[in-house]
Amino acid sequence: KQIVLLPGDGIGQEVIESAKQVLEAVTERFHHTFTYHTHDIGGVAIDKHGTPLPEDTIRACQQSDAVLLGAVGGPKWDQNPSHLRPEKGLLGIRKQLGLFANLRPIKGFDQLLHASPLKHDVVAGSDLLIVRELTGGLYFGTPSERRNNGKEVVDTLSYQRDEIERIVDNAFQSARLRRKHLTSVDKANVLESSKVWREVVEEKKVDYPDVEVEHLLVDAAAMKLITNPKQFDVIVTENMFGDILSDEASVLTGSLGMLPSASLREDGMGLYEPVHGSAPDIAGQGVANPLATILSTALMLRHSFGLEKEAAVIEEAVQQVLEDGYCTGDLDVKGGKQVGTKEMTRLVLERVT
Amino acid sequence: KQIVLLPGDGIGQEVIESAKQVLEAVTERFHHTFTYHTHDIGGVAIDKHGTPLPEDTIRACQQSDAVLLGAVGGPKWDQNPSHLRPEKGLLGIRKQLGLFANLRPIKGFDQLLHASPLKHDVVAGSDLLIVRELTGGLYFGTPSERRNNGKEVVDTLSYQRDEIERIVDNAFQSARLRRKHLTSVDKANVLESSKVWREVVEEKKVDYPDVEVEHLLVDAAAMKLITNPKQFDVIVTENMFGDILSDEASVLTGSLGMLPSASLREDGMGLYEPVHGSAPDIAGQGVANPLATILSTALMLRHSFGLEKEAAVIEEAVQQVLEDGYCTGDLDVKGGKQVGTKEMTRLVLERVT
Ligand SMILES: CC(C)[C@H](C(=O)O)[C@@H](O)C(=O)O
Ligand SMILES: CC(C)[C@H](C(=O)O)[C@@H](O)C(=O)O
Repeated sequence: KQIVLLPGDGIGQEVIESAKQVLEAVTERFHHTFTYHTHDIGGVAIDKHGTPLPEDTIRACQQSDAVLLGAVGGPKWDQNPSHLRPEKGLLGIRKQLGLFANLRPIKGFDQLLHASPLKHDVVAGSDLLIVRELTGGLYFGTPSERRNNGKEVVDTLSYQRDEIERIVDNAFQSARLRRKHLTSVDKANVLESSKVWREVVEEKKVDYPDVEVEHLLVDAAAMKLITNPKQFDVIVTENMFGDILSDEASVLTGSLGMLPSASLREDGMGLYEPVHGSAPDIAGQGVANPLATILSTALMLRHSFGLEKEAAVIEEAVQQVLEDGYCTGDLDVKGGKQVGTKEMTRLVLERVT
Repeated sequence: KQIVLLPGDGIGQEVIESAKQVLEAVTERFHHTFTYHTHDIGGVAIDKHGTPLPEDTIRACQQSDAVLLGAVGGPKWDQNPSHLRPEKGLLGIRKQLGLFANLRPIKGFDQLLHASPLKHDVVAGSDLLIVRELTGGLYFGTPSERRNNGKEVVDTLSYQRDEIERIVDNAFQSARLRRKHLTSVDKANVLESSKVWREVVEEKKVDYPDVEVEHLLVDAAAMKLITNPKQFDVIVTENMFGDILSDEASVLTGSLGMLPSASLREDGMGLYEPVHGSAPDIAGQGVANPLATILSTALMLRHSFGLEKEAAVIEEAVQQVLEDGYCTGDLDVKGGKQVGTKEMTRLVLERVT
């Protein structure tokens, strides 16, 4: 298997190095051969090549079986014009690879739940998956422009019906592998696109009679994620609602630094990345938490390669490290021993081999 | 002053009756003369007049100095085609009256904070105001339509630059009357409309040098509202982001049943309504909590009529009722005495006169 590594900016370099070591160890243990190629994206690509997404990076990703990304962005590029912003690299590679399904599993770790802003009773036991449509909607629709000498501005939320169908199918399939409950989030009382979304969900549910379906308006969903996160199993929604709700959900369990994500193409090819950002303030200090990136490699093994056992080995190792009382500076394991990136990586490696 | 009452659906009737009694008592005490006219909106208007927003209602509101609304909606009309949905009445009256600024103050009551899903340390002391643009953006933009035989669907997010300017001015002025901190929320790393939004905020801040300004992306705002609500004073944002964030914020303090809102026109005319919905399940039973509607009349006195002292009398009376240990069924005052709508109204009346 060909894996492209895109470390990107800030702590990206450090966490990708860690995750690669863990992935290598596990694949060797199970006798798989993975080959790694490193390429530039984001701010570092702007500095070296004058663009956040070099042709060479696109080509390498297109020829690969999976991509592992660190993070993009930082204050250095914040004032750049919009085509020279690190995020454009991320948006661009999603579009180029046709990564339409963003999967964000959110599950608390017992050792970290006390760091949640929510009361223990409210959050304990929550285990949800947000499936966000990633290539359509308001972030990509045209026209997106100023008009009338700048007196007016327009963005466009646009969806092809088949784009909605494929993400809804993906979510139903995900729900099948879990607790068989799907919440579809839209704003069908106002938006035409949401009405089509709701129709598609209603049509598709006939094909998945074993999955229970519920519709929720996005404003109500934003409330219920906080008041009762346990009521959710799989949530499916369009690009922008998914952006907002998945970030909202990411802070519920008190372990943002532990959350992985997957962005998938129809054939299973995917890009995997931690949910946290590039954390420029601690970059290069050897203190970054590599666990979300390590957990992202588990998602890669599961979703792109169907290697469930290998994925579970990584997830259990991470769980074990926390149970053994280790943490990085961003985490707050009660009575835990704080370690740096390298030592944390070694502790995980010890437990996967 | 001419006040239009729009009870609407569900518990609307009951809470409007309560709020009217309180408003009458306070205005009499201070020797103001208010005249009341009741009209139909929402589901009840669909049933009686075949439209959620009768001409007659629009005309009465246009001739009034302020409008007090109960709630619209209910399962009875959920399957209606979209032009015959109760919400259309609400969207329509906002548009007809030019109510561009939706103000949602969110402040916890000590007696109710224990019902918050958030830990006490996280939520105690939070006191924020969300200023949502209400007449532009994705909910009103055209085209909003299916295309290509239903294979494609489009909604349009559109803003006039001066629509952004007036809401940003409104928010700066609100911040001035509070702790002088303004958080502007957008998605300027992706949307053209958000770039214009950010430019306008940057331009306007020169006129308000005493107000500290911060920009936040909507996904980050959705996180920070939960992890640290205390960091916010005034939040200003466009229509849809405001819809989502204000509902998210409304559950933080554990007292959704206590939250008022104001929707204002440039000349100060406004529509006032509780944040909670029509609660069809408990309608007509005499148990609805009238306090959010009563508090909405305080906002009316303050924002439409500049009657700050009168507004404060109502707010203090509500505060006092809670301190004295009374609550309605939806609230959970520890060791509190549960009362119905009429008795709660009497308790407030006792304290305003
Ligand atoms: C960087 C940005 C464009 C991106 C998005 O909103 O898609 C990010 O917020 C995310 O959620 O991955
Ligand atoms: C009923 C609906 C159209 C409305 C809105 O989103 O504007 C409601 O959610 C609100 O927030 O007042």
